[in-house]
Amino acid sequence: MARADGREPLQLRPVHIETNYLMHPEGSVLISVGNTKVICTASIEDKVPPFMRGQGKGWITAEYAMLPRATETRNIRESSKGKVTGRTMEIQRLIGRALRAVVDLEALGERTVWIDCDVIQADGGTRTASITGAFVALSLALQSFSGKKSLSKFPITDYLAATSVGILEGGQVVLDLNYIEDSKAQVDMNVVMTGSGEFVELQGTGEEATFSYNDLQGLLGAAQEGLMELFEQQKAALGEEIMQKIENRRKK
Amino acid sequence: MARADGREPLQLRPVHIETNYLMHPEGSVLISVGNTKVICTASIEDKVPPFMRGQGKGWITAEYAMLPRATETRNIRESSKGKVTGRTMEIQRLIGRALRAVVDLEALGERTVWIDCDVIQADGGTRTASITGAFVALSLALQSFSGKKSLSKFPITDYLAATSVGILEGGQVVLDLNYIEDSKAQVDMNVVMTGSGEFVELQGTGEEATFSYNDLQGLLGAAQEGLMELFEQQKAALGEEIMQKIENRRKK
Amino acid sequence: MARADGREPLQLRPVHIETNYLMHPEGSVLISVGNTKVICTASIEDKVPPFMRGQGKGWITAEYAMLPRATETRNIRESSKGKVTGRTMEIQRLIGRALRAVVDLEALGERTVWIDCDVIQADGGTRTASITGAFVALSLALQSFSGKKSLSKFPITDYLAATSVGILEGGQVVLDLNYIEDSKAQVDMNVVMTGSGEFVELQGTGEEATFSYNDLQGLLGAAQEGLMELFEQQKAALGEEIMQKIENRRKK
Amino acid sequence: MARADGREPLQLRPVHIETNYLMHPEGSVLISVGNTKVICTASIEDKVPPFMRGQGKGWITAEYAMLPRATETRNIRESSKGKVTGRTMEIQRLIGRALRAVVDLEALGERTVWIDCDVIQADGGTRTASITGAFVALSLALQSFSGKKSLSKFPITDYLAATSVGILEGGQVVLDLNYIEDSKAQVDMNVVMTGSGEFVELQGTGEEATFSYNDLQGLLGAAQEGLMELFEQQKAALGEEIMQKIENRRKK
Amino acid sequence: MARADGREPLQLRPVHIETNYLMHPEGSVLISVGNTKVICTASIEDKVPPFMRGQGKGWITAEYAMLPRATETRNIRESSKGKVTGRTMEIQRLIGRALRAVVDLEALGERTVWIDCDVIQADGGTRTASITGAFVALSLALQSFSGKKSLSKFPITDYLAATSVGILEGGQVVLDLNYIEDSKAQVDMNVVMTGSGEFVELQGTGEEATFSYNDLQGLLGAAQEGLMELFEQQKAALGEEIMQKIENRRKK
Amino acid sequence: MARADGREPLQLRPVHIETNYLMHPEGSVLISVGNTKVICTASIEDKVPPFMRGQGKGWITAEYAMLPRATETRNIRESSKGKVTGRTMEIQRLIGRALRAVVDLEALGERTVWIDCDVIQADGGTRTASITGAFVALSLALQSFSGKKSLSKFPITDYLAATSVGILEGGQVVLDLNYIEDSKAQVDMNVVMTGSGEFVELQGTGEEATFSYNDLQGLLGAAQEGLMELFEQQKAALGEEIMQKIENRRKK
Repeated sequence: MARADGREPLQLRPVHIETNYLMHPEGSVLISVGNTKVICTASIEDKVPPFMRGQGKGWITAEYAMLPRATETRNIRESSKGKVTGRTMEIQRLIGRALRAVVDLEALGERTVWIDCDVIQADGGTRTASITGAFVALSLALQSFSGKKSLSKFPITDYLAATSVGILEGGQVVLDLNYIEDSKAQVDMNVVMTGSGEFVELQGTGEEATFSYNDLQGLLGAAQEGLMELFEQQKAALGEEIMQKIENRRKK
Repeated sequence: MARADGREPLQLRPVHIETNYLMHPEGSVLISVGNTKVICTASIEDKVPPFMRGQGKGWITAEYAMLPRATETRNIRESSKGKVTGRTMEIQRLIGRALRAVVDLEALGERTVWIDCDVIQADGGTRTASITGAFVALSLALQSFSGKKSLSKFPITDYLAATSVGILEGGQVVLDLNYIEDSKAQVDMNVVMTGSGEFVELQGTGEEATFSYNDLQGLLGAAQEGLMELFEQQKAALGEEIMQKIENRRKK
Repeated sequence: MARADGREPLQLRPVHIETNYLMHPEGSVLISVGNTKVICTASIEDKVPPFMRGQGKGWITAEYAMLPRATETRNIRESSKGKVTGRTMEIQRLIGRALRAVVDLEALGERTVWIDCDVIQADGGTRTASITGAFVALSLALQSFSGKKSLSKFPITDYLAATSVGILEGGQVVLDLNYIEDSKAQVDMNVVMTGSGEFVELQGTGEEATFSYNDLQGLLGAAQEGLMELFEQQKAALGEEIMQKIENRRKK
Repeated sequence: MARADGREPLQLRPVHIETNYLMHPEGSVLISVGNTKVICTASIEDKVPPFMRGQGKGWITAEYAMLPRATETRNIRESSKGKVTGRTMEIQRLIGRALRAVVDLEALGERTVWIDCDVIQADGGTRTASITGAFVALSLALQSFSGKKSLSKFPITDYLAATSVGILEGGQVVLDLNYIEDSKAQVDMNVVMTGSGEFVELQGTGEEATFSYNDLQGLLGAAQEGLMELFEQQKAALGEEIMQKIENRRKK
Repeated sequence: MARADGREPLQLRPVHIETNYLMHPEGSVLISVGNTKVICTASIEDKVPPFMRGQGKGWITAEYAMLPRATETRNIRESSKGKVTGRTMEIQRLIGRALRAVVDLEALGERTVWIDCDVIQADGGTRTASITGAFVALSLALQSFSGKKSLSKFPITDYLAATSVGILEGGQVVLDLNYIEDSKAQVDMNVVMTGSGEFVELQGTGEEATFSYNDLQGLLGAAQEGLMELFEQQKAALGEEIMQKIENRRKK
Repeated sequence: MARADGREPLQLRPVHIETNYLMHPEGSVLISVGNTKVICTASIEDKVPPFMRGQGKGWITAEYAMLPRATETRNIRESSKGKVTGRTMEIQRLIGRALRAVVDLEALGERTVWIDCDVIQADGGTRTASITGAFVALSLALQSFSGKKSLSKFPITDYLAATSVGILEGGQVVLDLNYIEDSKAQVDMNVVMTGSGEFVELQGTGEEATFSYNDLQGLLGAAQEGLMELFEQQKAALGEEIMQKIENRRKK
């Protein structure tokens, strides 16, 4: 059975990654996954947060937000509310943690990379699109930076992408859920994986439902298919020179 | 003497207005004025704030924000700071007040239009670009809305645009300052005007400097030239049908 | 190889669940898992949050906090900071979501159960101990409540417990990590499961590391062993009458 | 046509400036403009904000507030609300900016002058009364300070005062609007001017109305008349010695 | 031994109470106790806070603040800090509680009186001057209010005043400490008393010191002397008509 | 007449002090006074707050909180509200001030002791139980600390305990009010006293009532009886060695 938008169960939505989307940041992309659009930027700061000082290592931290009308109905800005919601905090902690898994923080030196993911338009999968896009922005920033200041090694040690998988009401396992599918799914799982096929994060939730070990196997298989395609998109966006640098680090 | 970017003193930067930029809002544009880029959306809500209830009139309110890397160096998000800066408050009050001058709030009925101006990339003139773009987003939203619910009259009563003028260090009056010019100008003035050439807001500031009555006349003349061109851009973006509706209201 | 505290790799720490620990709440326990001690209470309120009104269904929401000296060094109170950290928000969202998976919200009626998990002493695994203890406090509260007001059915549909598993630096898979182990583990996974062996939540993280499909299988096996033992502890704490009510709901 | 309170269109309300109103501040005044009463103080601190350090220059910053019952109905305190309103921020930014236009920040040295304007009783024109009074408090503070520590030059380079002008519903241009007039005016303009007749700030607003170039000329003429009278009041309050010092700086 | 300012140990500073100091509030005074000056206002609102609704009784609540330069060195505004300090909260709770002891809340009806005490200049004893002044402002407000709406009885049942007493370093008991004395005193006690000589509040503190039962007796005797004089000042400020109304309530 | 719970008017509720209740803090107790239960911890930090630096003296600061369900109905967490209530601030200021009266801050050296009082279950008298328990936790922490780092002298100079006394509706003076008694009492007084019988704090309040000098004498007599018993409980909890150290300091 085809899905509401005509896709096959294990088919990703169209993915586009526009690099160097903004003039100021060291690295930036506009990533679209179907109708979900996120501006991801990477900014390099020449110091680390207090708890990291003096260790000779860098840090990656992430912030995530949505424009008020990224969604069907307008959301109150978090700046107006004066606080960040739990959902936002959860997502930005996830993005930072995931990226740190493929960065050699010692090679980065005592620097912080600030990742900003701002969702311009939301149609499901904003956190996974953010991770996939942020990886590209981060790679571009480090490439541009390594042209100016000498780094001992290129700090990116592998590719990193994320996607969502889920089980629809009838039991169908699907890849890359849009908003309508996501809000009706029984089980929802986000998978973050390296280019070598290792897991970085696995977050499966059965909101008001549960899932079996068999279900889990089906979900992980679907995720892997989508992720392989996302790695190809990232490589195309990054280009030969950066790809070569990442390959060099993977071998070690 | 030509300017740093080669423009004549009274020449605007290139202006582009991309309408219906986002899928969810009732009205949306991406406006570029040179390198300054702002996403403006208009969202219609079927109620008014408490202080307006029961008066049979609508309300227009605006919010303004910048992406953290819209600027040369990264700004801390206002949601992380937990409060909105004075500059932001000043700008969003200005945008709302300006738009209300060309909206017949009674024709709008007891509804609120939320204007959101999110600066994606900043190179001077973000508040005036926001007003110019927000006017288009608002008009599109009301047009789309009047297709669904009958309004007694089209609520927009005139065009509205804004630009900046200033006096550079040598005394040269210039139109539409970019960031470098703005940060060095002796006098900086924002002018908001209707399509009929009436002033809506005039905010002139000599930060650590002053200006004479003669200076003021020069500045207002320059502003008027730029504004005439911006009205043409708005008309082109809005199209025949909406133009006709606005013309009908202007006559009365 | 035995662990630092002499446990076998797949051995839980000693678990004690003291029921009705406090005089005021409808349900309360003091749960100890090794040196980790959490007071869990369940409070029933006769209304639901605004987004749930008029649906004839109830809601479960959770809050989590630590005493300032629950930990080795004193933490600043979140009330003094004036905001709740991302970690706290993530945990309280997890606790609420997990419990809702085994509660028939319609049988609860338009009521909210507030779960409070206050960590008195922390030595790793505070979020999983909170879930395991909160399930018992919730069951006690609903039992006490159903003695006063008639509920159509007992709202608890299955047991629910949580534990952590991880991979230590040498590659050893271990169950129920204490703080020292947790802070050194390469991979850390929290598993929330029903009494029927279905997954409710699966959160695996390789902070600055990754894990393979094989690793995942080892981790899930370890978790399952620990969870079976935790369900026995919960049954002993709840007693015959409540066990009977839960069994009745599981059959359907 | 005379105004509600019997004044001529271009007549100021009675102005009184009581100097050294408080015992602790370096400079203080109680200014009354009709029923509007503001306590203005100037406090000198021996350091500058971080963004100004090491430039050998000083800074002037202002804060503005109202007592809760300065107005007809009681306002909630901003300290109770936990945040400062947009209106307050706009006013305090204006006061600081205006004063800096007549202060030689290098002659001030690396010091900050904190201006506090606290409205005791409000009847329109509180921001312009604040500027007019704050100029006197600032001059007194610098005079007292220059008696203790040697400043290379007296830092005040010119007089500074502010007033409001507006257009009433029938089209009448009036000077120094009280609260009733202000709330009904079609156009409201605040003008900040130096003793030499140069503009420092010009803020004209047609809330739900607009104004022409001709209107603007009428408004500016009215403002100038009122400002000339305010400069005389300031001179009388400051006394011979300070007047002499300011005159010396104006000549250069 | 006479005190630093030449007073006898049991001598109050000069007290002045200027009634109807502001035009908008229902009741207002400017009270000076030596150099300590406080504006006290009373505002009547026609509703009570939620926890009081439907009981047919009124409420008195108080807020207290200082101008930033009421003190020797400038204090940061609580509105800028975004929160109210513990000291402020303690004082405003004390003022409200004290006044409620001499108000017949049923005679007030379902209304709230907001008391605002704003310290213009501080030289010790600001909280006791606030209570003494607030009592007068409250009486004036209720007198003015009872002229407009009929109250069953005048709600003030007795006079109320407050003063401070302390023990200086050498052991001398003194009345009405100024700031210098207060900051060096070993023991500091605030006494709030009714016109009938009954205690309403007694707060004695030996910060880094202690005091005996004998000390306590000396302090209470001193306080009583000062309070008798303050009641005379209040009566003079309130005038015959209000005095008569209060006397009528005291008899019952 | 015996009290609701059968106690004599001047009878304390049963008191238990469990020392070293938690594993991490330098000093900790669980104190129960009847059904009121408070965890008190003392944490030593090797620095003082900014305003104390360089004086060669230490500081004691206290924080107080309640679990949400310590009370009959659930309270919103102060961390969720984002601010601390006035009542909490008042109590934590009281606890810190009281403890500092029996600590030789010079003997402590430039260190801060953080006292945390977390009410697990509340039934009246939580602030006085907090002080009584915190004194024991503080003594334990300093004893443990003086075993590690040499202090010139043991910093505790006397015992310190607190209790409440009140006057019930019929005029009966009672000791150690529980929640029901407290909420109905006409007069409520908290007394903090040293082991030598000197007052440290005296806070008497007649909320919507007053009390005479005679009443005060009766209240203070009752308080003294209870406090003598509390000192015995503290001595038993602290043990011979610490008692000896405190006795040595009292002699001087």
